[in-house]
Amino acid sequence: MARCTIGIDLGGTNIKAGIVDRAGVLLGRTSIPTEARQGFEHVFGRLVGLIETLPGELGVQRRDIAAVGIGTPGPMSHKEGIIYGAPNLPGWVNIPLRDRLSTAIGLPVTLDNDANAAAFGEFTAGAGRDVSDMVMLTLGTGIGGGIVVAGRLLRGFFDNAAEIGHTIMVPDGRPCPCGQRGCFERYASANAVAERLVEAIGAGERSSLGPRVQAGGRITSRDVCTAAQAGDELARRIWDETCRYLAIGCVNVQHMVNPELIVLGGGLIGAGAALLEPVRHHFGQLVWNVSRDAPHIEFATLGDDAGVIGAAALAALDHGGQS
Amino acid sequence: MARCTIGIDLGGTNIKAGIVDRAGVLLGRTSIPTEARQGFEHVFGRLVGLIETLPGELGVQRRDIAAVGIGTPGPMSHKEGIIYGAPNLPGWVNIPLRDRLSTAIGLPVTLDNDANAAAFGEFTAGAGRDVSDMVMLTLGTGIGGGIVVAGRLLRGFFDNAAEIGHTIMVPDGRPCPCGQRGCFERYASANAVAERLVEAIGAGERSSLGPRVQAGGRITSRDVCTAAQAGDELARRIWDETCRYLAIGCVNVQHMVNPELIVLGGGLIGAGAALLEPVRHHFGQLVWNVSRDAPHIEFATLGDDAGVIGAAALAALDHGGQS
Repeated sequence: MARCTIGIDLGGTNIKAGIVDRAGVLLGRTSIPTEARQGFEHVFGRLVGLIETLPGELGVQRRDIAAVGIGTPGPMSHKEGIIYGAPNLPGWVNIPLRDRLSTAIGLPVTLDNDANAAAFGEFTAGAGRDVSDMVMLTLGTGIGGGIVVAGRLLRGFFDNAAEIGHTIMVPDGRPCPCGQRGCFERYASANAVAERLVEAIGAGERSSLGPRVQAGGRITSRDVCTAAQAGDELARRIWDETCRYLAIGCVNVQHMVNPELIVLGGGLIGAGAALLEPVRHHFGQLVWNVSRDAPHIEFATLGDDAGVIGAAALAALDHGGQS
Repeated sequence: MARCTIGIDLGGTNIKAGIVDRAGVLLGRTSIPTEARQGFEHVFGRLVGLIETLPGELGVQRRDIAAVGIGTPGPMSHKEGIIYGAPNLPGWVNIPLRDRLSTAIGLPVTLDNDANAAAFGEFTAGAGRDVSDMVMLTLGTGIGGGIVVAGRLLRGFFDNAAEIGHTIMVPDGRPCPCGQRGCFERYASANAVAERLVEAIGAGERSSLGPRVQAGGRITSRDVCTAAQAGDELARRIWDETCRYLAIGCVNVQHMVNPELIVLGGGLIGAGAALLEPVRHHFGQLVWNVSRDAPHIEFATLGDDAGVIGAAALAALDHGGQS
C-alpha cells in the first residue's frame, strides 16, 4: 500500500504544497497566492481547496494520502496545534489550525513552524540525508533555526526551541523587533547585511552603492556581495563581518547542540562560495582547540522545496506514511 | 531484588563516591584524596579499591550493585568510554577508562563528563526532579553545562554538547584558555567575577578591595559579592554585570533548547538571593516579548552530591538498577 503525505509551506505571499511518497520522494508540487489580506477564513478556504485538489492534480489517489503536514510562520505550538500569531497573516491569532483543518479535510494534520519544517526537509531528503544530528540556519528576512537530534526535531518544552536567530550575539547590540537587543539575526540575516550597509552609508561611510542608497533605492544582500566582489571596501567589510558572525553562530551551535552537520539555507546562500568559504574559514579560526571534532558546514540543497518536503515528512512521522 | 548503582565524581583533588538505590535515594557517600600527581595507574588503583570497599562500608551487598557511573573532568567520549585528557589529572591521556575499569571490577561502567553528571543528578533527585526538560549551568572555575531533553541527556554527535560555558557571548572578547575569545565563562563563572575585579583594580579603578589586591592577596567571588553588598561601587558594577551575563546565557539557552527549567549550581550560588534575584530580573528585562513562555530559573539543591547521584543515575539508565 503506497501511502503518501501532503506537505504545505504556508507563507504570507504564497501557499506551496506538494505530495511526498513513502520513500520521501517529492512527487510534485504547486503554489497558489495566499491572498493573506482577505483574512483567516478566506485563506483557510484556499488551504482546504488546495488540499482537496492536489492529489488529482498530481495523479495521486485521495485514499493514498495518509496525513497533511503544515509549516507556518510565527509563534505556534506543535503540541497544541495552534498558531498564536503570524506577522504576515493578518487575523491569524490563536487559531487551532490543526484541529480545524483536520475536521475540514478528514485527515490527520501536523503543525510545525516553517524553519523546523525546512530543517526536517533538508534532514530527510537534502543536505542532511546521511546524518543523524543536524542544525539548519535559514538566512532570510531573519534567521530561522531547526535542530535535529538523533533523527527527531528538538522542539523544546514550550515548542520554541531552535530560535537560534534570537540568541544574543552582541550584548546591548542592535535592536530587534522581538524586543531584545543584539540578536544573531540582526547581524547575519540577508536583510541585516543590506541594513547594515545602508546604515553605514547614512553615517557617512563611502561606498560605490552610496548614490543608489542616497537616491532611496532598495539594496539587497546580493548587491552587497556583488559590490564586495567588485572591490568596494565598505561592502567587503560588512560582508566579511557577516560571514564572521555566521561563524560565531556556528561555534555556539557546536557548543550547545554539537551536531554532525550545520546546514545553511535561505536567500543569502545565493552568494555561493563567497559566503561558504569565509564562513568556514572564520569558523576554523574562532572555534576552540580543545577538540578537533567539529560539525561540517554545508549549504542546503532543496531550495524552496525544503519546507514542503519537511512538512510532509513530519506528517509521515506523526501519522504514518513514508517508512 | 534491590539493585543499586555506584556513582563516582572524579576530581583533581578528591574522588567522591556514593551508592544510590533503585528509588534514586543516596544511601551514603565517601570521599578520598585523588593523589592525582602520582599518575594514572596510581589513581586507577585507588578508584578500583574505592569501588571494592564502598558497598561494605555503606552496608550494601556487593551483589546488589548493578553498575558504576563515573563523571570525569575534561574532554571525553561517553560513546567510546574514553577520557581524552583531563587538565587536573596528569597522565590521563586517551584512557579507555570504561572498559579498563569494567574489566577490573567485573561490573558495567558508564562514563560521562562531570557537568552532565551533575545536571542529571539535579534532574533525577534535585531541583529538576519534577520536570522533563532542564538545563543546568554549574558556575565554578568555568561554567559547566548539562542539557536534559525529555528525560535524556543531550550529548551531541561528538559527545560535546552542552559546553555552554564556551558559547561566545562577546565577539572578540576576553581570551579563554580553550583558544576562543569572549566565552560565556570568561564573564560569569565564579573565577571570572574575581578576575574581572582584580583587573579593574589593576587598571586603576578604586575599590575597598584595592589594598588587598595590591598586597597580592587572593580575591574570590564571595569577596566581590560581600564588597558589593557593603556598597563598594566597583564590586557592585562587576557583580551586576555578572548577573546580567548570566541572564543573557539563560536567554540563549531558552532560544536554543527551550527547557522548562534552568538550574544554576556551583560555588557562585553561595551568594544566594544576591545572585538569583538580579539574574531573574535581568532575564525578564532582556528576553523577547514574542512569547511569555519562559523557563524558570532556580538554584541547584544537591550541592556537592549532584555529581555522585547523577553518575549513579546514568549508570542505572544504561545498565539497569533504579526503576
